[in-house]
Amino acid sequence: MSLIVQKFGGTSVASVGHIEAVADKVARFRGEGHDIVVVLSAMAGETNRLVALAHEIMEQPTPREMDVLLSTGEQVSVSLLCMALERRGCGARSFTGGQVRILTDESHTRARIREVDSTRLHAQLEQGNVVVVAGFQGVTENGCITTLGRGGSDTTAVALAAALEADECQIYTDVKGVYTTDPRMVDGARLLRHITFEEMLELASLGARVLQIRAVEFAGKYKVPLRVLSTFEEGPGTLITLEEEEMETPAIAGVAFERDEAKLTVKGVPDVPGVAYKVIGAVSEQGIEVDVIVQNAAAEGSNDITFTVKRGDAERTRQILEQVMPSVSAQSVELDTKIAKVSLVGVGMRSHAGIASRMFKALAGENINIQIITTSEIKISVVIEEKYLELAVRALHGAFELEKHQSGEAET
Amino acid sequence: MSLIVQKFGGTSVASVGHIEAVADKVARFRGEGHDIVVVLSAMAGETNRLVALAHEIMEQPTPREMDVLLSTGEQVSVSLLCMALERRGCGARSFTGGQVRILTDESHTRARIREVDSTRLHAQLEQGNVVVVAGFQGVTENGCITTLGRGGSDTTAVALAAALEADECQIYTDVKGVYTTDPRMVDGARLLRHITFEEMLELASLGARVLQIRAVEFAGKYKVPLRVLSTFEEGPGTLITLEEEEMETPAIAGVAFERDEAKLTVKGVPDVPGVAYKVIGAVSEQGIEVDVIVQNAAAEGSNDITFTVKRGDAERTRQILEQVMPSVSAQSVELDTKIAKVSLVGVGMRSHAGIASRMFKALAGENINIQIITTSEIKISVVIEEKYLELAVRALHGAFELEKHQSGEAET
Repeated sequence: MSLIVQKFGGTSVASVGHIEAVADKVARFRGEGHDIVVVLSAMAGETNRLVALAHEIMEQPTPREMDVLLSTGEQVSVSLLCMALERRGCGARSFTGGQVRILTDESHTRARIREVDSTRLHAQLEQGNVVVVAGFQGVTENGCITTLGRGGSDTTAVALAAALEADECQIYTDVKGVYTTDPRMVDGARLLRHITFEEMLELASLGARVLQIRAVEFAGKYKVPLRVLSTFEEGPGTLITLEEEEMETPAIAGVAFERDEAKLTVKGVPDVPGVAYKVIGAVSEQGIEVDVIVQNAAAEGSNDITFTVKRGDAERTRQILEQVMPSVSAQSVELDTKIAKVSLVGVGMRSHAGIASRMFKALAGENINIQIITTSEIKISVVIEEKYLELAVRALHGAFELEKHQSGEAET
Repeated sequence: MSLIVQKFGGTSVASVGHIEAVADKVARFRGEGHDIVVVLSAMAGETNRLVALAHEIMEQPTPREMDVLLSTGEQVSVSLLCMALERRGCGARSFTGGQVRILTDESHTRARIREVDSTRLHAQLEQGNVVVVAGFQGVTENGCITTLGRGGSDTTAVALAAALEADECQIYTDVKGVYTTDPRMVDGARLLRHITFEEMLELASLGARVLQIRAVEFAGKYKVPLRVLSTFEEGPGTLITLEEEEMETPAIAGVAFERDEAKLTVKGVPDVPGVAYKVIGAVSEQGIEVDVIVQNAAAEGSNDITFTVKRGDAERTRQILEQVMPSVSAQSVELDTKIAKVSLVGVGMRSHAGIASRMFKALAGENINIQIITTSEIKISVVIEEKYLELAVRALHGAFELEKHQSGEAET
């Protein structure tokens, strides 16, 4: 018998019918003798409905009151699931974040968890009840309601799993787990049985989004075994764990990609200290997130600074750069919105030589020109022309034989 | 400068537009220098929506979880009003029942308030903020959310006013106050400037429903001056107070009536102890509320027992009585659904002789036959044929000159 934390997102509790299906699943696990803590999001659409009400009143709603408003969404979900469990003869008790006492800092609408009191939850589990906790929310020292920001329910689940020393934290979503790449793009995309926290972080931030990055970081920090799996289909999902020494790690976990980017180049800036800061600083000060940054020496004493931003921010970024140009003596600003980013991710990369050259060879074999290359310990990213994206992903997936089971990977 | 508790019901916060109007009103009071505590109900329709969700899952939803579910309705209202106040530059802080710490017993869905902690509210008022409290809800010693039953927001308002020793508790509704009778029935119906708690209790239970009875009882017990007034129209409303010695009380406060009743008579029961208990007990055991009860000696050693119930319960009551008949040796059971009840209410009745005879004379003058008469200290009720209801109410309103200002009644 183990203690399992199960988190169901908004689409898993979108209607009373969906909630009934979740109740069936939870009751079955409980029937197998496990202690179960469930974390729920608001019913799909509910948070948007509440946000719209607030925006009818003011453009920038008071953060403290926004949290009071939004936290009702999860409160509705947990009460309904408890009723559905009770109807199945499965004892259940709901808790808001404040009732558990999920203590957070005072940053309303994006609070961070400081401490979780597991006393009341343990007491309910000992009485044989399923505990159903409203995700996404907490409470300050002063008893004010806070929320953790969108997707914060994943973080709630991991924090509870850590506090309760759960055997596993299961995140139920609308996908079967983490794949080697997007299965809609590559037929041979394979469901990964295992992935490390570090790989998951790189894959998540690169577009294969199934989990909140904060939740993955949190799980890694507290060594909580995290499993991503489907609410709607049976299957083992993907287990996200620490890198295990005894397991021979495959070189590559997956191919991630990002379509929604634009590339900006500030040309001919003088090769003196502080220029990159002036350029990038001007952009990020406006709240624009900068992704890949590279600097190439163009001519003697002159540099080009190239970076990517979300495509929606591209035009605004260009305007900012044109204002900055005189102060950094730049020659010109160029914008290219027809680009995409493709990345290979894998902790095994560290011990496998020649991954980069194999990657570049595969792209060259398809006549795909590489515009930018950036590398980290467990990731190699390239920026290419957007029209080659699918071709590049398929070529890399094939070149690294990701459709086949890797060494160290259990059979499904 | 005074401390005022203002309660707005569901129709007063039915939409964002309504909430804006409430914010205007509250901000104006605050601007006049008063300390304001606002109590809100859920937006009209919201509670019904939540109840419907629960009933999709189970017919008799778990009471504990029903309270978790329903309490979200008021939480939404208070956050939205605080935003609307903040936008008007009027500092505001929302509180749930649990956050105030409105301590209740553990009777979920119909909890009773045990204690109100006013510490946090006083602290906010001292900082110059308007305090906005979610009505209808509280919390148990163990931190479980409770609700006070429908209409419980009035009770919340009165309990807060008592705990804060407020100068006045204002209940905003969709009527201008308490009238001498229903203005839709009698053109001359007059808005009362004052009424006593006792009169209000009799009027409320007799059909002129503007306030929850529990709230009026509570206000009377804790001597909280209570004012009923309109959200949508200006005016002083009706102040409900203790009977004041210096004020010469008018004989009659108003004419109440109840159309929705039915009369049942169990005929020819033996005149022995315990018969009334057997008859009425059998009915109330089935959860049917019995209103007027009279017993007339019919023949030697034989009685008729007559009582009224809600018309919707009439047929079921008749069936119960037919089952009971043999055990009380009754001769027959008669049901009359075409009746109505009319009542004169007034604390002044106690010191004014001849009210009853004046009432009967007025009805006789219109050829209205009286079927049942019951009296209490401050009320005389008659049951008559339903078709005479409007005529009777108008006749009594005229006979007691209720359209004119009474002695002790201030000019509007």
